[in-house]
Amino acid sequence: MRTQLAEQFGIEYPIFGFTPSQHVAAAISRAGGLGVLGCVRFNEADELDAVLEWMHENTDGKPFGVDVVMPAKIPTEGSKMDLDSMIPPEHRAFVERTLADLGVPPLGDDEGVNTGVLGWLHSVARSHVDVAMEHTRKYGQIKLIANALGSPPDDVIAVAHENGVKVAALAGTSAHALNHVGAGVDIVIAQGYEGGGHTGDVASMVLWPEIVDAVGAAPVLAAGGVGDGRQIAAAIALGAQGVWMGTYWLTAAEYELGTTGDGPSTVQQALLKASSRDTVRRRIYSGKPARLLKTRWTDAWDAPGAPDPLPMPLQNLLVGEAHARISASDDPEVVAMPAGQIVGRCNAITPVAELIDGLVSGYDAAAERMSRTVVAREGNHLVG
Amino acid sequence: MRTQLAEQFGIEYPIFGFTPSQHVAAAISRAGGLGVLGCVRFNEADELDAVLEWMHENTDGKPFGVDVVMPAKIPTEGSKMDLDSMIPPEHRAFVERTLADLGVPPLGDDEGVNTGVLGWLHSVARSHVDVAMEHTRKYGQIKLIANALGSPPDDVIAVAHENGVKVAALAGTSAHALNHVGAGVDIVIAQGYEGGGHTGDVASMVLWPEIVDAVGAAPVLAAGGVGDGRQIAAAIALGAQGVWMGTYWLTAAEYELGTTGDGPSTVQQALLKASSRDTVRRRIYSGKPARLLKTRWTDAWDAPGAPDPLPMPLQNLLVGEAHARISASDDPEVVAMPAGQIVGRCNAITPVAELIDGLVSGYDAAAERMSRTVVAREGNHLVG
Repeated sequence: MRTQLAEQFGIEYPIFGFTPSQHVAAAISRAGGLGVLGCVRFNEADELDAVLEWMHENTDGKPFGVDVVMPAKIPTEGSKMDLDSMIPPEHRAFVERTLADLGVPPLGDDEGVNTGVLGWLHSVARSHVDVAMEHTRKYGQIKLIANALGSPPDDVIAVAHENGVKVAALAGTSAHALNHVGAGVDIVIAQGYEGGGHTGDVASMVLWPEIVDAVGAAPVLAAGGVGDGRQIAAAIALGAQGVWMGTYWLTAAEYELGTTGDGPSTVQQALLKASSRDTVRRRIYSGKPARLLKTRWTDAWDAPGAPDPLPMPLQNLLVGEAHARISASDDPEVVAMPAGQIVGRCNAITPVAELIDGLVSGYDAAAERMSRTVVAREGNHLVG
Repeated sequence: MRTQLAEQFGIEYPIFGFTPSQHVAAAISRAGGLGVLGCVRFNEADELDAVLEWMHENTDGKPFGVDVVMPAKIPTEGSKMDLDSMIPPEHRAFVERTLADLGVPPLGDDEGVNTGVLGWLHSVARSHVDVAMEHTRKYGQIKLIANALGSPPDDVIAVAHENGVKVAALAGTSAHALNHVGAGVDIVIAQGYEGGGHTGDVASMVLWPEIVDAVGAAPVLAAGGVGDGRQIAAAIALGAQGVWMGTYWLTAAEYELGTTGDGPSTVQQALLKASSRDTVRRRIYSGKPARLLKTRWTDAWDAPGAPDPLPMPLQNLLVGEAHARISASDDPEVVAMPAGQIVGRCNAITPVAELIDGLVSGYDAAAERMSRTVVAREGNHLVG
């Protein structure tokens, strides 16, 4: 399944794997894809710096990428305290009442509150970019910087290009995609409705070829609904140069975030049980529509009397501590987790290398089936 | 793009075209696909009988199909008058007020009210089946009977099979698909979120392979989001045996319903302008979630204070006359029309034969691109 884009990146397969876990990201790169480390969980540039150093030491010199969150519009900026004052007390009361109803205890004195919300602020995201650029000047391994919320600012694109780093941006509409290309973005990640996290309303089958047609020469990565080699084949058939996958890696054996010992973490237990119907697309995670695992937490926000979510970044701040409490409470029925509809295929804890082997063999079988329909025009074989 | 299923039906391409228009259905069959006539608009069996006779005279002996609507659960039955009494006056008042606000006049004395709602009743749907079976005994052209709402009753499946007619049923989840196969349905139509009319929440990229895997040997038609040869290639890559397309034919040159003279009808004008983002999935059309063109009519039901839609078939009865009034008022901004997200590709009034030519050449190009990635494993070519 090699494409020109895979050639450009010097990777074996055009499988771009987004994950907040450095262990998973490194394993994806080692297995021939491109691991892309999600940076939004790092409040401090120093934390990211240390993790990128670890990535360098664990990727055998293979390329990888980073994903930062820079909202397209100038966002609300300020200290956590300034922003806190903008949250209505009714919203705080609802969150507090809901957590009590769901049996989620307060954090213990010994549990640090890493609410992970500052990564959503523009200034923090910019510091992530600075750290990543420093690393790529040192080791030359970071080949991609991706942005989930709009086109990155001009100077970020410029500094990335100066350092030989390609810039990618997620798009949920062809208008977004055209904006990205106009701003100098190199690669458009077309993410359909079924995708996890921030996502639009147009589904992948319609969105991918629409964006391919809209952007012309710019390469498109297909995102939203990919967790099987057949879906990678569909992405190529629809004109994409590769795929961008996120949810699929959450049940990788290397995924260490949230695990407390042996066996799957609480979140992984929830993911393993979920079917393709067990997600919802709501504004409750960040203030913008994002697809999440459907749990008792999302149900509470759907119940009559629940308040409307706040805009980004206030909603992040509102639910930041709640997410930390939910995470610490270890109840698989009450988790707050972005996940796409492909979660229905996350049915076992599997090492990344095996996952990628399965994707490649599934792709080959689908491409083979397709090539038989080409032969079939000469009347020899039929797909059946 | 020949598949075993196309062979079984004796058709050139595994393109199953659902349409309420006999002119379009006949043209699809003549062009090498399988035209499937939607029957829900026929209140009387005699009307359907005459149209099937016309189909026979205009299809050069090629096979075609019919689509009836038989709800899976025993529906509310009874005369229109019985059912009318179950509609709350507030709902009627909302509809009346909304039509006035939107400038939709009452029907003139000379305009017959064909509210087309009785086709949704079980007894009427059964009479459609009887008429279709009579025709196939006479001419042998009807090769498929499809049902949009659940598995058909046992005796309908039995009589279809006795007459050599295959039975297909739409499924929005793998559980639906398994029920269908268990009930004796021959072909599962897996319709994703992006599809027009009644549709579920799981998008095609995830749903199609999930249903292919669930049903095992039963052939699957891929529906929801198909309006391009690349999407047919994606369907084959994902394991389907062909595609089921509806929205794409609404701007066919042969589509005569609602036209009042030369040029596109009011509804076609609205469809031609719409992008992939101009649809909504709501219960307002029939009581069950259905994707519709987003217009001022759907906006009114989304506005604060609008009532919740009623269950099927009460909602059909509630809006039946409103749909007739909207249709007669000829305002492209106020239409009530099922349409999928692929409406973004309905950009010209085009004869069916040309549409099918385009699908076939698009498919061939995608299959060719895919076959180059197979070659690429030997290192010769790259997709770019």
